[in-house]
Amino acid sequence: MKIIVDAFGGDNAPQEILLGCAQAMDELGIDIVLTGDRARLEAAAREMGLSDQLSRMEIIQCGEVLTMEDDPMSVIREKTDSSMAVGLRALAEGRGDAFASAGNSGALVVGATTIVKRIRGVKRVSFAPILPKKQGFFMLNDGGANVDCRPEMLLQFGLMGAEYMKKVMGVENPRVGLANVGTESHKGDDLRQSAYKLLSNFPGINFVGNVEPREIPNDACDVVVADGFTGNMLVKMYEGVALTLFDLIKDVFKKNLKNKVAAGMVYGDMKALKKQVDYNEYGGAPIMGATKPVFKIHGSAKAATVKNALRLTRDYTQSGFTEEIGRILKEKSAE
Amino acid sequence: MKIIVDAFGGDNAPQEILLGCAQAMDELGIDIVLTGDRARLEAAAREMGLSDQLSRMEIIQCGEVLTMEDDPMSVIREKTDSSMAVGLRALAEGRGDAFASAGNSGALVVGATTIVKRIRGVKRVSFAPILPKKQGFFMLNDGGANVDCRPEMLLQFGLMGAEYMKKVMGVENPRVGLANVGTESHKGDDLRQSAYKLLSNFPGINFVGNVEPREIPNDACDVVVADGFTGNMLVKMYEGVALTLFDLIKDVFKKNLKNKVAAGMVYGDMKALKKQVDYNEYGGAPIMGATKPVFKIHGSAKAATVKNALRLTRDYTQSGFTEEIGRILKEKSAE
Repeated sequence: MKIIVDAFGGDNAPQEILLGCAQAMDELGIDIVLTGDRARLEAAAREMGLSDQLSRMEIIQCGEVLTMEDDPMSVIREKTDSSMAVGLRALAEGRGDAFASAGNSGALVVGATTIVKRIRGVKRVSFAPILPKKQGFFMLNDGGANVDCRPEMLLQFGLMGAEYMKKVMGVENPRVGLANVGTESHKGDDLRQSAYKLLSNFPGINFVGNVEPREIPNDACDVVVADGFTGNMLVKMYEGVALTLFDLIKDVFKKNLKNKVAAGMVYGDMKALKKQVDYNEYGGAPIMGATKPVFKIHGSAKAATVKNALRLTRDYTQSGFTEEIGRILKEKSAE
Repeated sequence: MKIIVDAFGGDNAPQEILLGCAQAMDELGIDIVLTGDRARLEAAAREMGLSDQLSRMEIIQCGEVLTMEDDPMSVIREKTDSSMAVGLRALAEGRGDAFASAGNSGALVVGATTIVKRIRGVKRVSFAPILPKKQGFFMLNDGGANVDCRPEMLLQFGLMGAEYMKKVMGVENPRVGLANVGTESHKGDDLRQSAYKLLSNFPGINFVGNVEPREIPNDACDVVVADGFTGNMLVKMYEGVALTLFDLIKDVFKKNLKNKVAAGMVYGDMKALKKQVDYNEYGGAPIMGATKPVFKIHGSAKAATVKNALRLTRDYTQSGFTEEIGRILKEKSAE
């Protein structure tokens, strides 16, 4: 399997991307195709003692970089020679089996939609972060790609999310819930009420009804369905509360000598807990609905996270997800 | 000052409501008018040794109770003889200066709107929980009263929130932020983009622009403006993450003998932290936009929280909030 990687996407490019790719190539049995400037990549590889590994990767030369500040549309306008745009075109042309980037998420969604193209029947490409819950993890779909949604899109987010959790994450019969202000079927706005009906009536989906965000981190379900605006609010509130709480706990542990001693005694376990609830640890988020797998690596990813993300990209590609979604939607439209 | 209290609202009514009212009457210099069944109140007072205190409260007799399961509209339909409906009518008739209830929030919003009536110019009555941030607290307005909103409503939520924080909570020049998926002015859906413009152009409001939920618990602003659907999602996600994290920390502290010893050493400080971030401690949430102050006491409130809530209700009533909002909106429409 060949995974195309945007060598110049994210906060720690190209060094950490290169190192993560080198590790993934050795440990995961995948081939790597990098997009970016060859001279800069070779310089970085020399610096890091990775020249041998780089020589075993394919490089598709391009000079530009699309940054976090660039408009998402620039991937098909001003920045068509960027490492992201070139990578997406290489995927569309079949020069690799999947594409992964730690760059601008919005641009990646635009590129997946317009360059790689949607699966026939898919209304919108979605961005689906995986977050930890009390035990295990859940997916939030859509996590921010589509601020305005129609009910059919929410149904498809549920279908794609369930398929991904089953095929890639190994969750049996994933429970799909609709993020809403109350659990009763009539709750929420028109969008929620209509999406509830569609999700209830679709055969084969394990829809558990509305879920309130209070219960989401406490294992309400495996796939949380939301419009991209709400989903993005939820992911960011999740992060914000976790970060602030850990800061406050740190203050407690530093308060006086007695607390510092106690902190030393639980240091390892608290560190493990912090890691457990840090969603960056999950490597990234699949972008779903395009004809080929596109994966968003966390923007701040270091080599270990890049490697994790590439493992998930590999599993995503091997899973047959794209074909299965195409089949489900085709069957449905034939009904 | 006379505060009318729904003696049969909430999980711990009437006992904890009665005790909280008795304490508030003695400590806060307010008079209490209870709504509910006299015989049941007298029996509860006898049981708790509060007969003397009860004898100093006015009771407005009514037999019914509106429960958490009742439809919010029942406050003006099936349950017009409930302690909540009777209390709201008593407020409208001037038999007290404010009304507080730990009962069904939705019904309280409906009653504030239709029985107490909106301030002239106010488009929607809102429900505004106060939540802790890293230091101090912030208000989320609207926190769930209005799932469908127009931009002018969001502007008014901002205005009312700022006025409340200033006049009741003592925050100088409160910073108002719009909950959104990004900080740039063009971010979000049509509702957000239009609300951003209205908030930017309104004179006298300290609008700090869009705020991402990731920064909200970390002191992004003092008043977070949202439509009621988004606001409710944010409050509930906040609660959910905090509850789950504290559960996980408890597991760490119970893991083995060493951790148990450490837990003992920081027990008091961790308990204080848990209390600091528990939004129930703040007593409740103002319902804003009605012609007289209505206050939602937390459903699970015990006596101490009821007393806190009545202190806030007193401050809300004394603040001149209602008159000020009326004045601001009148001036605006006169422009």
